[in-house]
Amino acid sequence: MISVIEARDAILDRIRPLGVERVDIASARGRVLAEDVHATRNQPPWDNSAMDGYAVRSVDTVPSSPDSPAELEIVEDLPAGYVAKRSVGPGQAIHIMTGAPVPEGADTIVRAERALKVDARRVRILQAVESGTDLRRAGEDIRDGDLIIPSGMLIRPAEVGLLASTNRSHVSVYRRPRVAVLSTGDEIVDVDEPLEDGKIVDSNGYALSALVADAGGIPQRLGIIPDTQEALEEALRDGLLADAVITSGGVSVGEYDYVKAALESVGTSMAFWKVSMTPGRPLAFGSIDDTIVFGLPGNPVASMVTFELFMRPALLKMQGYTHIYRPTIKARLLEDLTKSLGRKQFIRVTLQKRGDQYYASRTGAQGSGILRSMSIADGLAVSHEDQEFMPAGQEIEVMLLGGYSGLSDDRNY
Amino acid sequence: MISVIEARDAILDRIRPLGVERVDIASARGRVLAEDVHATRNQPPWDNSAMDGYAVRSVDTVPSSPDSPAELEIVEDLPAGYVAKRSVGPGQAIHIMTGAPVPEGADTIVRAERALKVDARRVRILQAVESGTDLRRAGEDIRDGDLIIPSGMLIRPAEVGLLASTNRSHVSVYRRPRVAVLSTGDEIVDVDEPLEDGKIVDSNGYALSALVADAGGIPQRLGIIPDTQEALEEALRDGLLADAVITSGGVSVGEYDYVKAALESVGTSMAFWKVSMTPGRPLAFGSIDDTIVFGLPGNPVASMVTFELFMRPALLKMQGYTHIYRPTIKARLLEDLTKSLGRKQFIRVTLQKRGDQYYASRTGAQGSGILRSMSIADGLAVSHEDQEFMPAGQEIEVMLLGGYSGLSDDRNY
Repeated sequence: MISVIEARDAILDRIRPLGVERVDIASARGRVLAEDVHATRNQPPWDNSAMDGYAVRSVDTVPSSPDSPAELEIVEDLPAGYVAKRSVGPGQAIHIMTGAPVPEGADTIVRAERALKVDARRVRILQAVESGTDLRRAGEDIRDGDLIIPSGMLIRPAEVGLLASTNRSHVSVYRRPRVAVLSTGDEIVDVDEPLEDGKIVDSNGYALSALVADAGGIPQRLGIIPDTQEALEEALRDGLLADAVITSGGVSVGEYDYVKAALESVGTSMAFWKVSMTPGRPLAFGSIDDTIVFGLPGNPVASMVTFELFMRPALLKMQGYTHIYRPTIKARLLEDLTKSLGRKQFIRVTLQKRGDQYYASRTGAQGSGILRSMSIADGLAVSHEDQEFMPAGQEIEVMLLGGYSGLSDDRNY
Repeated sequence: MISVIEARDAILDRIRPLGVERVDIASARGRVLAEDVHATRNQPPWDNSAMDGYAVRSVDTVPSSPDSPAELEIVEDLPAGYVAKRSVGPGQAIHIMTGAPVPEGADTIVRAERALKVDARRVRILQAVESGTDLRRAGEDIRDGDLIIPSGMLIRPAEVGLLASTNRSHVSVYRRPRVAVLSTGDEIVDVDEPLEDGKIVDSNGYALSALVADAGGIPQRLGIIPDTQEALEEALRDGLLADAVITSGGVSVGEYDYVKAALESVGTSMAFWKVSMTPGRPLAFGSIDDTIVFGLPGNPVASMVTFELFMRPALLKMQGYTHIYRPTIKARLLEDLTKSLGRKQFIRVTLQKRGDQYYASRTGAQGSGILRSMSIADGLAVSHEDQEFMPAGQEIEVMLLGGYSGLSDDRNY
């Protein structure tokens, strides 16, 4: 049986980023850029005023004596968004707003609080100002032609603003994977169907679809498939139109499990059927053409844990992400842990932080049917194949689950 | 001038969570639950088999001698999703699949690998099995009536699954705020408009809309408003139909700034106009009826930084979030920092992690027009009012920006 790391490598080896699509920048947040974006002009485009005040020649700001400040003639009133019609000559000033282009002739800005307006035509400069003061230079932020966002970068709000500032209304990004989600089993009914004896609700279909969306994918629930090979094959053929197919249930050893047969019958090239881990040992992975297929276990916790470990990095890689793993932290155990030798085990834990140290406690019983334990959990503590007994106080690695909000150090602002 | 902490308190004091709406559970991820959800039946609903195997009476599994294992009669074949028609009597077994309800009469499960099927009617039990083995008990996960998800909890994939498992197809969640985004200034044009001299693209409208969406809000760009009080008042009146209004630009001291006058004219009760911080000193906040109004500075960096510090927590509080702040970490400075006494300063930094220690370097020039610095930044380092010089090596608090991917300890699984 292959290890968790071997399984992940086998999966990621088969995955390349999907094709690209063009999206408008208002929809591009959270996507990965699939082209280098270069500046098409300087940013700022021209020398401009960093303050509201007066554009002047710095030589004109020197007072003739300590008691007689320079007095200049206001020759124009220049709002932002307009270009001065006049230039600044000796003894002249142009009243200027933040962001407005610096008029010809001026080499500095006297900010408003360093000046005293005498009347509509005259201003007194209260202190000498060096050349270049309170100017933003053309190209100070970005020079025409600069690479401003490299391909492969995650688009966050700052990148959306940058794209707009360089006149890009649309950009190429990697496609989001469409993921067909199938639940298998005669015992499964949808949430709005009557619950006869022996039936349970398809919680996996909902939880896995939410995990797909959480990983940036587009979930397509294909519904609940009866326990016959024919029904499964038909659903799989529909699913193969997507970029990935997830089935849950039907991959353990029982005679009522047709998933394997159906997967092989539709032509899936299977890489493995089992991974040495708890929860989640029955876990199948294969591909057919450009579609990858995951057969997740039917137990609610096992299906979520195997999704987190294998499917989520795969979906992120498809979208061009370079950081595809959940963050991990180190924590000290608050209780002894015992497990079977020879398998990796992922233990649902809650975390507490005291000072700089995290502490981990199990969420309670670790049965893989106990979905509430995933709701309570902050993370999955990782115990390795060669570990059997871990005493309280031992340090353990914890993979943080989405939505964990305890990462902060104490905030002091 | 009020401090950053006073400003944030003043803002959050005026904000209550918005009303609730019912959404289907497939759309509920990332929302905050606005009702207590109780279980409507036991989970699992009945004692069921944890393994594929045989439901038997444990007394029947004891071999009559070490060499002669017990042999039992298979009286029924029970798939998951169905209830046994027969009960298990002495000397009998029912072939059972994982998840199927335990038949009457049986008190334990013999997993398939501990049994040897002789023919369709007979199975040999290879080892004695104690009562209660490989059973999942009714109510083991959840008991009927239990509070399974409390009001106020963030709905993640595990909660979506839990809701489905307890037959909830819809839940009440707090509304997402609609946020009107206005850009002011005659110098601003939209991304697809011609760029005449003196004009710049409305990068703030795009960046702020992306920040709104990033904080769970629904951005509504009302466009670029000319520099007249009448135009602004009209746009503000449209904006007041939303839960929040953001303007950018027009809150500094210049004569061309009509935002203040327009805000007051439409009846906004203003809490403050300035906050003692860099970047972002001109920052206005007020409210009118149930709508809050933020007047952010026009500089691209200043508008993003003030959004992160004030607007994002406000929007999260509206949605019922209890964790409304970005995570922070402590880092050591890689270079000396000098700043003005008396103001809090938020310095754009990149982070490196070596071992357990983070190190911070400035992104370069900290001019508030330099939007690319926000794209490069991993976080905002916080220097306080009473700090003027911070030498390299000093520890500083860093608020992490969205999308920072360097939080992990080394991953070893």
